Amino acid sequence: MPTSDPSTIHDLPTPALVVERSVFEANLAAMDAVLPGPRLRPHVKAFKSTALAARLAADGHTSFCCATPKEVEGMVAAGLGDDLLLANESLDVARLGALADRANITVAVDSDVTLDAAIAGGIRSVLIDVEVGLPRCGCDPADAGRLAERARAAGLDVRGVMGYEGHLMMVLDRDEKERKVERSMSLLVAAAADVGGDVISGGGTGTFDLNTWCTEIQAGSYTLLDTDYAKLGLPFEIALNVLSTVVSVSPKGWIVADAGLKSMGMDHGNPSWEGGDVFIMSDEHVTLVPGDERPIGSWSVGDRVRLQSAHVDPTVAKHEQMWVVDGDDVVDRWPVDLRHW
Amino acid sequence: MPTSDPSTIHDLPTPALVVERSVFEANLAAMDAVLPGPRLRPHVKAFKSTALAARLAADGHTSFCCATPKEVEGMVAAGLGDDLLLANESLDVARLGALADRANITVAVDSDVTLDAAIAGGIRSVLIDVEVGLPRCGCDPADAGRLAERARAAGLDVRGVMGYEGHLMMVLDRDEKERKVERSMSLLVAAAADVGGDVISGGGTGTFDLNTWCTEIQAGSYTLLDTDYAKLGLPFEIALNVLSTVVSVSPKGWIVADAGLKSMGMDHGNPSWEGGDVFIMSDEHVTLVPGDERPIGSWSVGDRVRLQSAHVDPTVAKHEQMWVVDGDDVVDRWPVDLRHW
Repeated sequence: MPTSDPSTIHDLPTPALVVERSVFEANLAAMDAVLPGPRLRPHVKAFKSTALAARLAADGHTSFCCATPKEVEGMVAAGLGDDLLLANESLDVARLGALADRANITVAVDSDVTLDAAIAGGIRSVLIDVEVGLPRCGCDPADAGRLAERARAAGLDVRGVMGYEGHLMMVLDRDEKERKVERSMSLLVAAAADVGGDVISGGGTGTFDLNTWCTEIQAGSYTLLDTDYAKLGLPFEIALNVLSTVVSVSPKGWIVADAGLKSMGMDHGNPSWEGGDVFIMSDEHVTLVPGDERPIGSWSVGDRVRLQSAHVDPTVAKHEQMWVVDGDDVVDRWPVDLRHW
Repeated sequence: MPTSDPSTIHDLPTPALVVERSVFEANLAAMDAVLPGPRLRPHVKAFKSTALAARLAADGHTSFCCATPKEVEGMVAAGLGDDLLLANESLDVARLGALADRANITVAVDSDVTLDAAIAGGIRSVLIDVEVGLPRCGCDPADAGRLAERARAAGLDVRGVMGYEGHLMMVLDRDEKERKVERSMSLLVAAAADVGGDVISGGGTGTFDLNTWCTEIQAGSYTLLDTDYAKLGLPFEIALNVLSTVVSVSPKGWIVADAGLKSMGMDHGNPSWEGGDVFIMSDEHVTLVPGDERPIGSWSVGDRVRLQSAHVDPTVAKHEQMWVVDGDDVVDRWPVDLRHW
């Protein structure tokens, strides 16, 4: 960490993303216990940071999943290009084909058009993306074999299939989730038989330990977590907070801090605050109503609060860096260097 | 615009912010007809771009409003520092005091602590921020005179008051809105009498033409607009779209494009699509269900769609630039250079 960076949490400019190192490390250990090494293909879209990715690679997770061409490019630039999967359809893949001599890049395709783009763009390896119940990308399972054949005829390495059961991540009942994941993955396994190759890629933080059909799991949110995933009773805890400074205290009973909705992913709703209720989110403010434990009269301008976001991926994507802390000490700075497209 | 930039909209990498020049210019003209020159203090938080701000300055709006110290710094660096107001409380104002010889910077204060920070930080001018009904910043109106006196005793120029009736922006009925704004502004006008100075700053796009109590209106969203403001029947139209490429077409009846929730402010809900319904927003995808006008069979991978955001400010803040278009021609690129904090 550059010596010009703040050394204590009290000196961080706010709003700031703060990662509790001990919680983060415990999350990594909990995941490694179930999915060691290549059984996990960490999804960088959740944290968009090559510094965090390098920490995972040090634990033996050297194959990564990306959602955008920009994420792939950044991982290659950071020397993390052993096995990168663009787990998403894109027509803008020639920029990745141009990196084929420097990294091992695989791209998902689900149609003739995306396959043509991969061929024309100099992509060497593909996975056939199969729709397994989430209304998003992925071909009809019955079409997977045909696409694989076309890809091989064009000289591409078809490594296997991927299919994301994203619609099942937040199913609360474990038995119900297991049944539904099995049904969803049966489509993928059948398509894998048609496609060939040895990769069956899918899953996520919400199904990491019960999706036993995939050869590798695409999880990323487990590293930092959020209040939405925290509802599932997984062996992961919230490691990421948005640190904020109180800039106004009203005798009417609220305090205002400087973490607004521009610092927070809002698609899953407001962040949470352990000290009371989140009343209003504005662009650059949050209005908080303190609970009984610490009444309004004890709050001062300059106090700091920590908010927990409801969705970690878009929250991280709004910031330039994460600050890693151990108690009050700032021990590292992770640039969020994989943002944009 | 650099010659390396795309010259037509078809060549823009997606997702991309696209500004329709004719709509944008019409919005500016509609505002100027009501609030010419210094009657408007454009709020840069809505668009976070010094290039767009320079366009407004060319029309005679040379005093600007900012929500963050970073926005103030960027405006100074861009030579737009004639009259900058940080319309927000901050303890991190010494960085602005350091610019006092290069620009005319005024900071809002609403407490002894924020006033002390302004004094210690070398700030030369302040407005007293008064709470006028929005549960956020602003002092008790009865305390405004005392703060002004303290500020003057410390040698600061107290230019007047500000108070933001943000809770009234979205009142649909015009008569009701006018009554409520009058009641809200009566608090501000009374505080102004206690404070002195010649500035009464407030208002926004939603009250720009009926807040006649303020000497200057802090509007910014009118330049680009969004679907939320479009409900109000104001003389402004939506100039900003998120351009997106279709990457997957499902025979089940949906298409998938590459503008996900990381490219869109989501606090006011999903974006809108003129071609049909927005079904699901994912991190990097939007699943759309086309309407009857253009059935699913006519859609192809590679087609492009435009989405209208529900909240312009956080949408712009997620992008590195806006592309200004005139029909299919890309005529300018505006860097979104005032992001972060």
